[in-house]
Amino acid sequence: MHSGAMNPINIDTYLLAALQEDITSEDITTNAIMPQQKRAEVQLICKQDGVLAGIDVYSRVFRLLDAASEFESNYKDGDILVRGTLVGVLRADVCAILSGERTALNYLQRMSGIASMTKQYTDELAGTKTKLLDTRKTTPNMRLFEKYAVKVGGGVNHRYNLSDGILIKDNHIDAAGSIRKAVEAAREYAPFVRKIEVEAETLEMVKEALIAKADIIMLDNMDTATIRKAVILIDGQAAVECSGNVTKDRLKELAEAGVDYISCGALTHSAPIIDFSMKHLHILD
Amino acid sequence: MHSGAMNPINIDTYLLAALQEDITSEDITTNAIMPQQKRAEVQLICKQDGVLAGIDVYSRVFRLLDAASEFESNYKDGDILVRGTLVGVLRADVCAILSGERTALNYLQRMSGIASMTKQYTDELAGTKTKLLDTRKTTPNMRLFEKYAVKVGGGVNHRYNLSDGILIKDNHIDAAGSIRKAVEAAREYAPFVRKIEVEAETLEMVKEALIAKADIIMLDNMDTATIRKAVILIDGQAAVECSGNVTKDRLKELAEAGVDYISCGALTHSAPIIDFSMKHLHILD
Amino acid sequence: MHSGAMNPINIDTYLLAALQEDITSEDITTNAIMPQQKRAEVQLICKQDGVLAGIDVYSRVFRLLDAASEFESNYKDGDILVRGTLVGVLRADVCAILSGERTALNYLQRMSGIASMTKQYTDELAGTKTKLLDTRKTTPNMRLFEKYAVKVGGGVNHRYNLSDGILIKDNHIDAAGSIRKAVEAAREYAPFVRKIEVEAETLEMVKEALIAKADIIMLDNMDTATIRKAVILIDGQAAVECSGNVTKDRLKELAEAGVDYISCGALTHSAPIIDFSMKHLHILD
Amino acid sequence: MHSGAMNPINIDTYLLAALQEDITSEDITTNAIMPQQKRAEVQLICKQDGVLAGIDVYSRVFRLLDAASEFESNYKDGDILVRGTLVGVLRADVCAILSGERTALNYLQRMSGIASMTKQYTDELAGTKTKLLDTRKTTPNMRLFEKYAVKVGGGVNHRYNLSDGILIKDNHIDAAGSIRKAVEAAREYAPFVRKIEVEAETLEMVKEALIAKADIIMLDNMDTATIRKAVILIDGQAAVECSGNVTKDRLKELAEAGVDYISCGALTHSAPIIDFSMKHLHILD
Amino acid sequence: MHSGAMNPINIDTYLLAALQEDITSEDITTNAIMPQQKRAEVQLICKQDGVLAGIDVYSRVFRLLDAASEFESNYKDGDILVRGTLVGVLRADVCAILSGERTALNYLQRMSGIASMTKQYTDELAGTKTKLLDTRKTTPNMRLFEKYAVKVGGGVNHRYNLSDGILIKDNHIDAAGSIRKAVEAAREYAPFVRKIEVEAETLEMVKEALIAKADIIMLDNMDTATIRKAVILIDGQAAVECSGNVTKDRLKELAEAGVDYISCGALTHSAPIIDFSMKHLHILD
Amino acid sequence: MHSGAMNPINIDTYLLAALQEDITSEDITTNAIMPQQKRAEVQLICKQDGVLAGIDVYSRVFRLLDAASEFESNYKDGDILVRGTLVGVLRADVCAILSGERTALNYLQRMSGIASMTKQYTDELAGTKTKLLDTRKTTPNMRLFEKYAVKVGGGVNHRYNLSDGILIKDNHIDAAGSIRKAVEAAREYAPFVRKIEVEAETLEMVKEALIAKADIIMLDNMDTATIRKAVILIDGQAAVECSGNVTKDRLKELAEAGVDYISCGALTHSAPIIDFSMKHLHILD
Repeated sequence: MHSGAMNPINIDTYLLAALQEDITSEDITTNAIMPQQKRAEVQLICKQDGVLAGIDVYSRVFRLLDAASEFESNYKDGDILVRGTLVGVLRADVCAILSGERTALNYLQRMSGIASMTKQYTDELAGTKTKLLDTRKTTPNMRLFEKYAVKVGGGVNHRYNLSDGILIKDNHIDAAGSIRKAVEAAREYAPFVRKIEVEAETLEMVKEALIAKADIIMLDNMDTATIRKAVILIDGQAAVECSGNVTKDRLKELAEAGVDYISCGALTHSAPIIDFSMKHLHILD
Repeated sequence: MHSGAMNPINIDTYLLAALQEDITSEDITTNAIMPQQKRAEVQLICKQDGVLAGIDVYSRVFRLLDAASEFESNYKDGDILVRGTLVGVLRADVCAILSGERTALNYLQRMSGIASMTKQYTDELAGTKTKLLDTRKTTPNMRLFEKYAVKVGGGVNHRYNLSDGILIKDNHIDAAGSIRKAVEAAREYAPFVRKIEVEAETLEMVKEALIAKADIIMLDNMDTATIRKAVILIDGQAAVECSGNVTKDRLKELAEAGVDYISCGALTHSAPIIDFSMKHLHILD
Repeated sequence: MHSGAMNPINIDTYLLAALQEDITSEDITTNAIMPQQKRAEVQLICKQDGVLAGIDVYSRVFRLLDAASEFESNYKDGDILVRGTLVGVLRADVCAILSGERTALNYLQRMSGIASMTKQYTDELAGTKTKLLDTRKTTPNMRLFEKYAVKVGGGVNHRYNLSDGILIKDNHIDAAGSIRKAVEAAREYAPFVRKIEVEAETLEMVKEALIAKADIIMLDNMDTATIRKAVILIDGQAAVECSGNVTKDRLKELAEAGVDYISCGALTHSAPIIDFSMKHLHILD
Repeated sequence: MHSGAMNPINIDTYLLAALQEDITSEDITTNAIMPQQKRAEVQLICKQDGVLAGIDVYSRVFRLLDAASEFESNYKDGDILVRGTLVGVLRADVCAILSGERTALNYLQRMSGIASMTKQYTDELAGTKTKLLDTRKTTPNMRLFEKYAVKVGGGVNHRYNLSDGILIKDNHIDAAGSIRKAVEAAREYAPFVRKIEVEAETLEMVKEALIAKADIIMLDNMDTATIRKAVILIDGQAAVECSGNVTKDRLKELAEAGVDYISCGALTHSAPIIDFSMKHLHILD
Repeated sequence: MHSGAMNPINIDTYLLAALQEDITSEDITTNAIMPQQKRAEVQLICKQDGVLAGIDVYSRVFRLLDAASEFESNYKDGDILVRGTLVGVLRADVCAILSGERTALNYLQRMSGIASMTKQYTDELAGTKTKLLDTRKTTPNMRLFEKYAVKVGGGVNHRYNLSDGILIKDNHIDAAGSIRKAVEAAREYAPFVRKIEVEAETLEMVKEALIAKADIIMLDNMDTATIRKAVILIDGQAAVECSGNVTKDRLKELAEAGVDYISCGALTHSAPIIDFSMKHLHILD
Repeated sequence: MHSGAMNPINIDTYLLAALQEDITSEDITTNAIMPQQKRAEVQLICKQDGVLAGIDVYSRVFRLLDAASEFESNYKDGDILVRGTLVGVLRADVCAILSGERTALNYLQRMSGIASMTKQYTDELAGTKTKLLDTRKTTPNMRLFEKYAVKVGGGVNHRYNLSDGILIKDNHIDAAGSIRKAVEAAREYAPFVRKIEVEAETLEMVKEALIAKADIIMLDNMDTATIRKAVILIDGQAAVECSGNVTKDRLKELAEAGVDYISCGALTHSAPIIDFSMKHLHILD
């Protein structure tokens, strides 16, 4: 009953909209061929190696179509699946199964894809103190699900949105006149529970951010040598995030440079899906 | 004013939800630093080679935040962009620009990513009669935008949802007893303007679908040799779609096998984005 | 659990809006007089001969007001009712019964009215191959319910909306330059699972539609003699629909002229209701 | 800018839902054939004699699709139209015209149908003091539009919903124990600005209602002779409404019996439409 | 199952919006610390003397977060609570308890605050025939809850909104030309079940309102001496409401002046809350 | 065009719901008396001394009813008003003015009430380093407006909701086993941009919170002597908030005790309104 990606009050609006996107008036094929109401059973099978994410979202979709649907599984979000794994068994009205299949899988495959990519990236950072962050480069109306999947994959969430985090970028600095003035304005205005993060593109800007007492400094698009220098300069006075051109290959090098956090937009904007399918449907009794 | 992905009546609900996902209470950084209302200008720049899709969605986002915003561009959806292209210039209240930036780009980058992948795939089919189809493996609450992007990239849309197309799959056939019975039930039940498509996994099933007078036969997960045989068997009595394990490398071979349509889920579920950024923001006058 | 007019995910939005239209703040009469929560029973009685349609919608209304409500009936949609029939018995909280009565009946009476008129019309066509179609001349925000009622009465649904069917009318033809060009544009643009229908007002237009390989030709506002000629001309190369000035008296004549489909807007825009009432309410226990 | 059936804040929610019911993803025919944005003009023509109602709803539909649309008319709601009347001219983007046509006409034809039937009924009452009332037997999610149409046709609105009027029926009386107790409970509970109406099926009940000081007494399903007696009995101590089996033929007789109001469900549940069409579309310049 | 402030169909929309206002993405503190789903129990304790109002709203909030939540209480709305009262015990998933706490209490404390202030005011009127009314000076999107709380506290509801009551104010009178003309226009236009209320600022206006046969006359901002004269003038020909500058101290005097109703905006716009807290949370089993 | 309480994308949903709460079907009084559309002018006048807050919300309400409405004012949020001040002049359709009046004033009076109370409290803290905080004890569906009003009055916002701030309370500590474990769990789980706040009821708990490296320590319900000791103990290692039993009289004493922040629920849950009225309406032209 956690709030968030596991609770109806946060997700039902999205799930109902997605179901209505796929069943605008009715599922004509299923309604034509299955005129009787019958309870059926079907297997959820994973078709690629990956990390499971979104299993509660998957089962909620069917619950919305048939309040008596039941999903049994020995797996939970974060479990590693190999191709061919029988993830669980769904029992519901046969029409609910067939009409909800695509919507449920669309969530599950995308969330698991993100968790899997995140897991591959965080594995690279194993043994270091450096953590992997997501960004706001998410799919519209999917942020709740995508940020949750990053967490399932071992990543750490950056701010959720523009209301709950301060990130001062170049445009803000230009407008304010200087980093110091921008930080002061933010400290004055924003809820006091927010940390203040400043984006720095040069070592000069890093110095200014330190003087302004930023809580977090984001090193934007720097090469590794410069990042190393920045980390030495900062020397624990602020948390250090690096961002821009982050590929899996480069993660170790960045961690060794001493940054606390590495943020990576590709986790949510370009992760390929993990494929699942629903097989062996049969009518019960 | 086309309805669909270019008209407020179809997209505003999604766009407003996406804006509220990113600006739940307010953009605290921007509001802190830019207390005055000021008109500003910013450039939209493409950071990767690709096909433009979603430019009206992009500009609509800012219009929702500032009714006086204006976007000027020499490009339109479907145009090919090279890295560094100045796609257009946006003029709007500076807060609207900064607060809407991420949401607008999240749509644009994803739609352009799908259009670009589709274009690469359809280029493989150039000079053949075979067309590339999308599927319902779309991101929840993004189907309108994603199917439009496929069309922009030169693809053809398959059915939009479960209400507007009949596709009889193995589970339906099992439930009905035979392909013939399933087709009859669908023809009896569904709006008469629908074509009837049957999924066939074997040549035997293809024969049955022909006897049942299916309008379209989908060859599911067949190897190329079997597909060739199926096409010969069908011999123009039904349109032929092939599906399953479709990679870019295999497209020409499939086209040469004589199928009319090739459907590919990856276009919408696994296309990487095309990166755009908004640069050189400056206050006007 | 069929999707469509029998499933909460498709209908609850409409039903809740309708309940809120009738109970904007509260049912003051009922709340005043029945301060205690009490379970009661009431009979649903048909007050006119007709065809039952919407029984699941009727019972869902009360379920939304009282999750413990139960409706028992020996009848199902499509059954023929005579005046005075006891259609079923509803047990629910007495306030839910009284507050939901009008909304539930408003759906039921209208849906049954449409099914009844449709049945009268389709009875005229008994023994012919001709089928009766509905149109998009439905009451706003009632299409799902009204098209379902047509099906219950023995009719066949035409396209559900502008997204799921192609119908090329005179304005489209003018804009495209010719029937051939219009059909080509539609075939190029629209999802390939759609049939293409062309509206023809003259035999000349019928010929052009045939050359353009329209799947369906709609004969619009033709007299019966011309319709006969058109059917001979078409000779099975396309399905034939006739439309305009369709009255019950004329149905047999039109069927004998050989058309496959007759469409009739009056089914949804001008069917009188079938009256029902809820009687003999008494408190249980 | 009247609130109600003429103001966007009350009607836009319904209109947008109705548009999305008809254009769920896009208007594929129009989008296919009219790829360019072009301003066009079309005539709104009345195809039956009747009373105009809903002209602002009609024009608002197009405004929602194209903010630059303009509708010019020499007619206003309540005007009497004869077959063939050119009601007005609409100028808008051609796609907006074609995509919005059906939704706009569906409102207009139904509202005008109700106004026309109401006018026929109220004409019967001309020269008497008796007024014609509507009921809550309206089409779900159409009450605002339908009650307005009754007013346009010369009728008077009964209570809008269960929150804004007290009507004590047989079931309420049974539950309360007597008419007197029911009236007292209502007077105690309900907002003091409400009049209290009691439904009476016999002269005995009329007497009890008078003793209870009901503001309005509804004579339910009485024959005309009994109604006459009831009116004499009431003698101006309460307003008198009669209800049940109200046909046009019977209106004069009822008025002569001396009732103040006659309520008639058929006005909203069974009025046939007045047909309109949009003709002579042509592209401007 | 009363409709109104006790029925999900009227309140769930507001409650869900309020929950989403407080749990936009997730309750990060609770989710972090309570990773396991566990059933827990907590006490609802009143921290100030007052009148209980909103107990069903309180328990509904938790039901929306956890369908298995249960609330047991020996108290009902309208009961008088003293500081320290154990109002009830809630059993639910621990996350639902912690995440829903603030939203549920925000409703309860405000509704109880209004009921308590109303009770203090109506106690002043005990033994008189004069009743206390609320106004439309409510908190936006809280009217349903606030008007219900007034009723719980012993007050009487004035009209709920602009649709269900007629109140002719100075501006209306100016526009119409005279009180008589305004009353006539209202009687002609508005549903006939409405009483007509006229606001009068002078004895002259009271006289005009009487001539116009207003059902209710509101004496606006008059001193007590003038009110007395107005009551004598009206002499039972209309109900009398007085309004403006109503403080608790003045209630008896106003009642003695003979008015039927006293309306007081402060009940809903300025009542301080009654404080409640949830204490002694412990995990079950 | 600031996002938040000044931008349509954040507030229109609330404003439209509030308008529909007051104008569910129509404003019958106004529509009856003002049948013609006429532009009018009215003055907004402050009837009590106070701080203005919500002026953009006020004018937006009328804009939603009449897109051509204009509001002119020489005042802005935060300005101090004295009784009788002419705040501004509104020009709009007369029906829009009369129908929107109550809703617009309900927002304005409440927001200004909160700003005024906040201003009185922050004045007490003038010359100290201590800042005044709000809480989540807000009116449901009013948080955006109420937190903004606190800011206008000189206060500082605490976390907006459960998603954007970590506050570890006694229940969380019990569940986690110790303050240290609770802080660790939060640091592990929550977005890294969040500060971690711990509620401490005793000096012992303060010590534990320091060891756990809490960013903020909230001293809950302590007497001033204990607060002084806590501040000395904390000695700048964490920000210090005090909460509970905060009255205006006690503010200076608390500030002198050395706390950084004082939070006060009464600002949003019990502030009386500032009264405004709209006067001198007259028709233009």
